[in-house]
Amino acid sequence: MTQEKAGICPSTTHVTSGALPASKKIYVGELKVPMREIGLSNGESLTVYDTSGAYTDDNYKLDIMRGLPKTRLKWVLERADVEYVAGRAVKPVDNGYKTQAQLESRSVNHEIFPASPEKPLRAKSGANVSQMHYARKGIITPEMEYIAVRENQRREEVHSYSKDGQSFGANLPEFITPEFVRDEVARGRAVIPANINHTELEPMIIGRNFLVKINANIGNSAVTSSIGEEVDKMVWSIRHGSDTVMDLSTGKDIHDTREWIIRNSPVPIGTVPMYHALEKVGGVAEDLNWEVFRDTLIEQAQQGVDYFTIHAGVRLPYIRLTNDRLTGIVSRGGSIMAKWMMTHGRESFLYTHFEDICEIMKAYDVSFSLGDGLRPGSIADANDRAQFAELETLGELTKIAWKHDVQTIIEGPGHVPMHLIKENMDKQLETCGEAPFYTLGPLTTDIAPGYDHITSGIGAAQIGWYGCAMLCYVTPKEHLGLPNRDDVKVGVITYKIAAHAADLAKGHAGAQFRDDAMSKARFEFRWEDQFNIGLDPDTARAFHDETLPAEGAKHANFCSMCGPKFCSMKITQDVRDYVAANPEKEDEEAA
Amino acid sequence: MTQEKAGICPSTTHVTSGALPASKKIYVGELKVPMREIGLSNGESLTVYDTSGAYTDDNYKLDIMRGLPKTRLKWVLERADVEYVAGRAVKPVDNGYKTQAQLESRSVNHEIFPASPEKPLRAKSGANVSQMHYARKGIITPEMEYIAVRENQRREEVHSYSKDGQSFGANLPEFITPEFVRDEVARGRAVIPANINHTELEPMIIGRNFLVKINANIGNSAVTSSIGEEVDKMVWSIRHGSDTVMDLSTGKDIHDTREWIIRNSPVPIGTVPMYHALEKVGGVAEDLNWEVFRDTLIEQAQQGVDYFTIHAGVRLPYIRLTNDRLTGIVSRGGSIMAKWMMTHGRESFLYTHFEDICEIMKAYDVSFSLGDGLRPGSIADANDRAQFAELETLGELTKIAWKHDVQTIIEGPGHVPMHLIKENMDKQLETCGEAPFYTLGPLTTDIAPGYDHITSGIGAAQIGWYGCAMLCYVTPKEHLGLPNRDDVKVGVITYKIAAHAADLAKGHAGAQFRDDAMSKARFEFRWEDQFNIGLDPDTARAFHDETLPAEGAKHANFCSMCGPKFCSMKITQDVRDYVAANPEKEDEEAA
Repeated sequence: MTQEKAGICPSTTHVTSGALPASKKIYVGELKVPMREIGLSNGESLTVYDTSGAYTDDNYKLDIMRGLPKTRLKWVLERADVEYVAGRAVKPVDNGYKTQAQLESRSVNHEIFPASPEKPLRAKSGANVSQMHYARKGIITPEMEYIAVRENQRREEVHSYSKDGQSFGANLPEFITPEFVRDEVARGRAVIPANINHTELEPMIIGRNFLVKINANIGNSAVTSSIGEEVDKMVWSIRHGSDTVMDLSTGKDIHDTREWIIRNSPVPIGTVPMYHALEKVGGVAEDLNWEVFRDTLIEQAQQGVDYFTIHAGVRLPYIRLTNDRLTGIVSRGGSIMAKWMMTHGRESFLYTHFEDICEIMKAYDVSFSLGDGLRPGSIADANDRAQFAELETLGELTKIAWKHDVQTIIEGPGHVPMHLIKENMDKQLETCGEAPFYTLGPLTTDIAPGYDHITSGIGAAQIGWYGCAMLCYVTPKEHLGLPNRDDVKVGVITYKIAAHAADLAKGHAGAQFRDDAMSKARFEFRWEDQFNIGLDPDTARAFHDETLPAEGAKHANFCSMCGPKFCSMKITQDVRDYVAANPEKEDEEAA
Repeated sequence: MTQEKAGICPSTTHVTSGALPASKKIYVGELKVPMREIGLSNGESLTVYDTSGAYTDDNYKLDIMRGLPKTRLKWVLERADVEYVAGRAVKPVDNGYKTQAQLESRSVNHEIFPASPEKPLRAKSGANVSQMHYARKGIITPEMEYIAVRENQRREEVHSYSKDGQSFGANLPEFITPEFVRDEVARGRAVIPANINHTELEPMIIGRNFLVKINANIGNSAVTSSIGEEVDKMVWSIRHGSDTVMDLSTGKDIHDTREWIIRNSPVPIGTVPMYHALEKVGGVAEDLNWEVFRDTLIEQAQQGVDYFTIHAGVRLPYIRLTNDRLTGIVSRGGSIMAKWMMTHGRESFLYTHFEDICEIMKAYDVSFSLGDGLRPGSIADANDRAQFAELETLGELTKIAWKHDVQTIIEGPGHVPMHLIKENMDKQLETCGEAPFYTLGPLTTDIAPGYDHITSGIGAAQIGWYGCAMLCYVTPKEHLGLPNRDDVKVGVITYKIAAHAADLAKGHAGAQFRDDAMSKARFEFRWEDQFNIGLDPDTARAFHDETLPAEGAKHANFCSMCGPKFCSMKITQDVRDYVAANPEKEDEEAA
């Protein structure tokens, strides 16, 4: 059953739930790792990676007022290195208000999530609770075991379909073991974004030796959108396959929006704390300071944000490198910090306080997503000196983060023509010691507003193939407006395509079985199976029905392109009979 | 003014016409080469390649009952090597009827185009009227001069923006001269599809040293669609940028549908004559023969079809190579011929009569598009022995065609994972002596029915970059149903993106100026210009207005993503002031 009404405030929002078409949720192994089993009309089934959480489990009674079950809490507590702390009290300014009275007089009720944990968890004094820290100590955490099962997608049943690919140096084992996960995290080649306060999380991993992941951005802005819509967008985006979600809210109610999202999210949530900090100082970049930023990091870390985008690589001397660009600085975080540095004539406080930030990160296991504040905003500015100067600094900061055992991924562009994408990827791998790369697209041309999911899907597929670990989606509304539900869906599906095309090209052992199942269904005219195996069964079915609406057509041995009389797939069946009946020699003579 | 009503029969069809947004049609040089000039709000303008024909010229009085003006007729006659011939009479079977009475009793009126030329043109006895023949004799035809002007897009005004790329051996001169065009055609590296009977044509060129081109497929089928809709789809697809159009009609009224399309088409029209021949023998593949095929070639050549897809590379010994495939033979042409060969136990008549076909081609200047009847139908079957065996035969046939000075392009797949695309392109260049490659996509994964414009746009952009000369579009309805107008538009725009991304990556001197104009408009918040420079102004505008509908928002110095208060593009302006005011040394010290 699908409920699709998005309300103004969360309590009246009915988020989309119910099993995916022809699918049931299964829980594999002792850790009950969720997967999706697609039932086929020939009695076979297909197990695929599942990001959608309990929302697609018909046996689970959903209640977004309570949030998802805190199944991970046990694992966190069992490590005995955390403690409940008083925590930072929520202030009116966190939601964009000056006084408590203003906050309370908001016209819409129920905007405050009613079931927040009483107290946040934090590492005990002197402890480091990052997955990287455990990994380096040789400890395999339940999160790592969970991920090993999850990444395998029961592939022992399907690995005979794996094909060779061109992996550009990635190391893709036939089976993923918990030890392999640990080792990759220990080396910094993979990240498990898993804040100890996000106990609703279904752990996942980001690294080039695993399945390529995608991220969807949501968030309200000063101009438009509501909390309820954003919660629904989160659920909607993971329903279609988003592996992580970034909440990029600006404007009012940021703290509360985030609380609703985290408590109801089974996937890691990322934020750009700078956006929130800026709201707290009235939107005036030059009024920012380390104290308000630090306070914001702690606020969000205690809520359970899994990764922070921090633009610490935008250094004062790099600002002038953007002067001759066609489109200057287009990253919001980058331009805020540029404004701040220019006004104060000082180095960025994100850079000078980087080790202070590391201390916060390791107390909650928040992962760095080191922002690319100087990413190119146009084809003309791709791979320029400003971009690469920042990348080199990100490499330097990665080493500092790793010194603190803080997990780190690196953000990348943006707008890059195809022939410069590989150079970008190679330089990132080299400069940042193989820390996972996480790119926005890149867009391979600037001339198609309204279709930037496609201009960027082209670049995303390529950089994923070359080694990028996570692809941040771009929706059709990019450069034009805020994405609605339809845009989010199209963006997510486009990026699932890019990520999967990359997995195939890399030769990932767990990739091609789904393509083969689809092709087999296609060859055998199993129409329902074709719909259900695909990334978007509803759309495929609707498109088919536009041309041939009758139910009978879904069982017919032909399709609308060729009609019933001659069909290439049908003729091919004859080939098999022919070959069986005729030895090779006869062909040669006849030819 | 846009008229968008598609009727059942052509006479009541109002095809879409009127200037494109903010654009006017201009005619450049003595040969009046049509281009599109986009007017910008800052007084500048942008000249871009224009495939849309007179339909977007507000000064032209359109009449689809008469067809487009025959401007090319003069050039053809001036060569004095052609003559009007009685021509083949249209038979009832050409339209799928057994008797003249059945043909005339059709319920819908006006289906016969009322202004067909009285007699077709043909080469005088012994003459060869192909552009390749002229080119090899050192003759620069008006078609070649026209193309040189067209390809340059007035680039002398913009070439300073050209950037380096990675061309993989393509030779992309800064300016295209008529002599360069002649030389490329003479070598067989480029093709000018230009039947002497398609005098309504605006000549264009297909070759990897020119702009990458795209093709849109239209055509009714036995199941659905009407002539009027198909004419409208042709006009609709060239309005959005399709460089050629293939009419893949099956079912009834094929001859008449084609006549309507050719007489109203300024772009080359391609067909698969086999589809038509099959209808003439009642859809029974084994009843085909050389005589009915030959008759169909002449019928279509005399109508003015510019290129024929002919699956002459599917040889008898190759059929068994498909036996172990996951999806066998998926090309319609390939499977028809396989069926024929298996039934008769004989080599394909397309292969044995190849030189007879060449004689017809050179008498009308129809170009070969040598079909890939054994192209893979799934990721699993990509680049297999069957596919490459056929490709080798296509290389052999190319040499035979060139011996007759018959222009030739080579068709390619289909379904290919990213890591096998380059191998495919390289093998085609080598095997077929650099004859232009023309691929369908390729799709880089099979798991997204409903989104195969995207799965294939990814592959198309890459193969275009590697050297593919023309990309055959795939619409969102691929594998599911027949595309409607919306699907055609999305398919065309997606492929314009792929082709342009390829041009950029190759380093084509006439590519990046449009991206730069867009980026500049974006940076300067010229919203109307952003819409109008883009590939689809209507969609871009509509998306923008969904978030910020007020007219004032289109003049605002902010967008809906960041809101009015802080905007990265705005802050970037401050950088310029800062750099102007602060010498470099001060940064270093502060840092």
